[in-house]
Amino acid sequence: MKKRIGIVGAGTAGLHLGLFLRQHDVDVTVYTDRKPDEYSGLRLLNTVAHNAVTVQREVALDVNEWPSEEFGYFGHYYYVGGPQPMRFYGDLKAPSRAVDYRLYQPMLMRALEARGGKFCYDAVSAEDLEGLSEQYDLLVVCTGKYALGKVFEKQSENSPFEKPQRALCVGLFKGIKEAPIRAVTMSFSPGHGELIEIPTLSFNGMSTALVLENHIGSDLEVLAHTKYDDDPRAFLDLMLEKLGKHHPSVAERIDPAEFDLANSSLDILQGGVVPAFRDGHATLNNGKTIIGLGDIQATVDPVLGQGANMASYAAWILGEEILAHSVYDLRFSEHLERRRQDRVLCATRWTNFTLSALSALPPEFLAFLQILSQSREMADEFTDNFNYPERQWDRFSSPERIGQWCSQFAPTIAA
Amino acid sequence: MKKRIGIVGAGTAGLHLGLFLRQHDVDVTVYTDRKPDEYSGLRLLNTVAHNAVTVQREVALDVNEWPSEEFGYFGHYYYVGGPQPMRFYGDLKAPSRAVDYRLYQPMLMRALEARGGKFCYDAVSAEDLEGLSEQYDLLVVCTGKYALGKVFEKQSENSPFEKPQRALCVGLFKGIKEAPIRAVTMSFSPGHGELIEIPTLSFNGMSTALVLENHIGSDLEVLAHTKYDDDPRAFLDLMLEKLGKHHPSVAERIDPAEFDLANSSLDILQGGVVPAFRDGHATLNNGKTIIGLGDIQATVDPVLGQGANMASYAAWILGEEILAHSVYDLRFSEHLERRRQDRVLCATRWTNFTLSALSALPPEFLAFLQILSQSREMADEFTDNFNYPERQWDRFSSPERIGQWCSQFAPTIAA
Ligand SMILES: Cc1cc2nc3c(=O)[nH]c(=O)nc-3n(C[C@H](O)[C@H](O)[C@H](O)COP(=O)(O)OP(=O)(O)OC[C@H]3O[C@@H](n4cnc5c(N)ncnc54)[C@H](O)[C@@H]3O)c2cc1C
Ligand SMILES: Cc1cc2nc3c(=O)[nH]c(=O)nc-3n(C[C@H](O)[C@H](O)[C@H](O)COP(=O)(O)OP(=O)(O)OC[C@H]3O[C@@H](n4cnc5c(N)ncnc54)[C@H](O)[C@@H]3O)c2cc1C
Repeated sequence: MKKRIGIVGAGTAGLHLGLFLRQHDVDVTVYTDRKPDEYSGLRLLNTVAHNAVTVQREVALDVNEWPSEEFGYFGHYYYVGGPQPMRFYGDLKAPSRAVDYRLYQPMLMRALEARGGKFCYDAVSAEDLEGLSEQYDLLVVCTGKYALGKVFEKQSENSPFEKPQRALCVGLFKGIKEAPIRAVTMSFSPGHGELIEIPTLSFNGMSTALVLENHIGSDLEVLAHTKYDDDPRAFLDLMLEKLGKHHPSVAERIDPAEFDLANSSLDILQGGVVPAFRDGHATLNNGKTIIGLGDIQATVDPVLGQGANMASYAAWILGEEILAHSVYDLRFSEHLERRRQDRVLCATRWTNFTLSALSALPPEFLAFLQILSQSREMADEFTDNFNYPERQWDRFSSPERIGQWCSQFAPTIAA
Repeated sequence: MKKRIGIVGAGTAGLHLGLFLRQHDVDVTVYTDRKPDEYSGLRLLNTVAHNAVTVQREVALDVNEWPSEEFGYFGHYYYVGGPQPMRFYGDLKAPSRAVDYRLYQPMLMRALEARGGKFCYDAVSAEDLEGLSEQYDLLVVCTGKYALGKVFEKQSENSPFEKPQRALCVGLFKGIKEAPIRAVTMSFSPGHGELIEIPTLSFNGMSTALVLENHIGSDLEVLAHTKYDDDPRAFLDLMLEKLGKHHPSVAERIDPAEFDLANSSLDILQGGVVPAFRDGHATLNNGKTIIGLGDIQATVDPVLGQGANMASYAAWILGEEILAHSVYDLRFSEHLERRRQDRVLCATRWTNFTLSALSALPPEFLAFLQILSQSREMADEFTDNFNYPERQWDRFSSPERIGQWCSQFAPTIAA
């Protein structure tokens, strides 16, 4: 008898899971509130880069529509501002790739439908879950960071923040020249904020995502509150001014005459993310265990670009565990967590740590940045470990570990 | 620079860890309160059978002194008493082997010393741990179920019992004829207790361990309180009477004229085990993380013979993790638990579940025994899964899972 899995939410979590299960002939029904052809009319959803580990899964799922050799990027430029600015570069072992989710998600939805996934276009509420759970061997909830999260208990020991840690201003732009290597630029303006610049495929071809992570109360916060639509020219001028002052390694590549949103006034998104880590399962009143996946389990600030990558990873692991087991109860949830939790939890911890470290700049973190800026080998490792947040956390989880890591590369510099 | 590991306790946990680490040229110092040549004068320590998975580790550690093809056993006979007694048999895929620990542990100690392990013969107290921890990269505590357990926090959610669940009477005997296949016999006398009979190598060659797991308040409890030394003949007669009444499938192979302790009056052990599951690490006042291993982490009743097997498993995993990492802190402990915890916790849960199920005999457990007695295939699986307690727990962790397992074999029976 075929297993029947219900999936609520058609984001990266739900769609990667659905595609995986259809490859193994599992019966899949996806509930989502948006049809594929609605996406092109939506406001920018996010600006997601998929790391090579995620692209590998896309290859395995046969949805690698935009190969990263052509559309992707190959490393990270770093810029650390201050009296003596630091500039350096780290390589990725295999390229990452960013595609506007308004293109990416409908592509996945169509692929899944073509492969026998069923779709029900309806918003699901917390009250609906019990009824839905009766219809499937397992119900998986992956409605993203806003909806239904409350069904899964928040783990306070892994949720250090109650409020957004950054005032975000995120947009897709044109008029920014590529750096010598097609790469992400991560620019840190001490005391004011971070900028992540990502080469991104969108409706009109390649564009540039700028993710401005502005410190609250800083000189940059105003960018999160100034509306493009009120006065586009004024907004763009403000951006040019602030970028020039705080993020010069990006500003120097901007052609002011060309600089504007890439497609339309929908290309901008402002606000903040409240990080949260929740139980990966919940027990409904009918006794059924349901599984939470993606942002439902772990919502992180976008500063390190981990959210969708860990959602895809967790979806794959969940798919394998669904195949391996046939009773989907608390014991099943233990099997699942034992495999997915380290990466998901470490991506969360590393992100939360980085938010705090970039605000407070403790001495061991400054020392780390110093040595990182001088050791190409260390910068390569740090950069490629964006694929493996649990390894990154092995480096960052205590001052002693940071120190040990740094001392490994300090001799190379002296020599 | 060589890693330096301190190990407190020279039981299976500490010795398997030490032997593993010496194979990888790690510096090992063992603290223990007993010299190898003291063991032959000790009272029976326990009656431990090593499953094939443990024997495999002994082969890899090059300490397989008593090959299980010659000294081991090949399956389990089961006897369930009651108005309609059930008798059946299940095969092990590879043999298990039991050797008196008064022979086994000194053999391991000598092997470890010959391979460069250092020994300090001294009793270690909780107060000594801080000082010791400063001398090593990592200190591992494995002093068994009695000593130093209090240093590691007891997990109440995994420690359902506050008192021993059985009144134990354990001895090494002669005068019991082997069953047709050399095997363990597990005999259940509903309402009164369990008997596990284990072919065991001791000082005078092969003998028979009888582990009487007597229900408290039952007809059998008296066996735990009657002293052999007070009147050997009276004790043996009482044993013969009780075995005949409650455990006939063993009693029928006893020659009353030959029946006695196998070596000396030290061959008997009476009392009870309080099951407990503790954190696998503790943080000392000096900030150092120490690791608990073996009975220190998980003390179980001997009814399913899991304690030493999981101690050996956990020692091996700890050895691998010590090699893989170089900072031994809370993050290290997470890596370790993610790998060892499922087996150790499931062996604990399965044992605790079995103690309760054999006392209360809930309907799904009786149904399980019925089907088990009729399906050789299921009995083989159940028997071989003594090697893999986490797989066994996948079968037993809820009435639904027991039911699903049974229904898998019920058709075979009908056919
Ligand atoms: C500015 C920004 C930049 C980011 N950059 C990166 C990055 O570079 N790399 C990275 O890995 N991550 C990044 N992220 C995070 C990433 O967007 C999320 O982690 C990821 O999209 C989560 O996937 P998901 O499937 O869990 O949820 P979502 O992608 O949010 O999908 C949720 C789905 O559920 C549907 N839905 C919602 N409510 C309901 C309902 N009630 N009933 C039915 N369906 C419903 C939605 O329509 C959608 O289909 C970024 C996020 C932001 C905001
Ligand atoms: C009757 C009985 C039957 C059993 N049958 C089985 C079976 O069939 N299969 C199975 O797998 N398990 C069985 N067990 C369980 C098994 O004996 C234990 O799980 C196993 O021995 C635990 O190993 P360990 O290394 O953690 O501790 P132990 O073997 O208890 O070793 C502890 C070590 O620490 C030393 N020590 C103690 N205190 C100190 C101190 N203060 N300072 C320094 N050194 C100290 C001791 O001398 C010893 O060397 C049985 C137990 C009993 C009681």
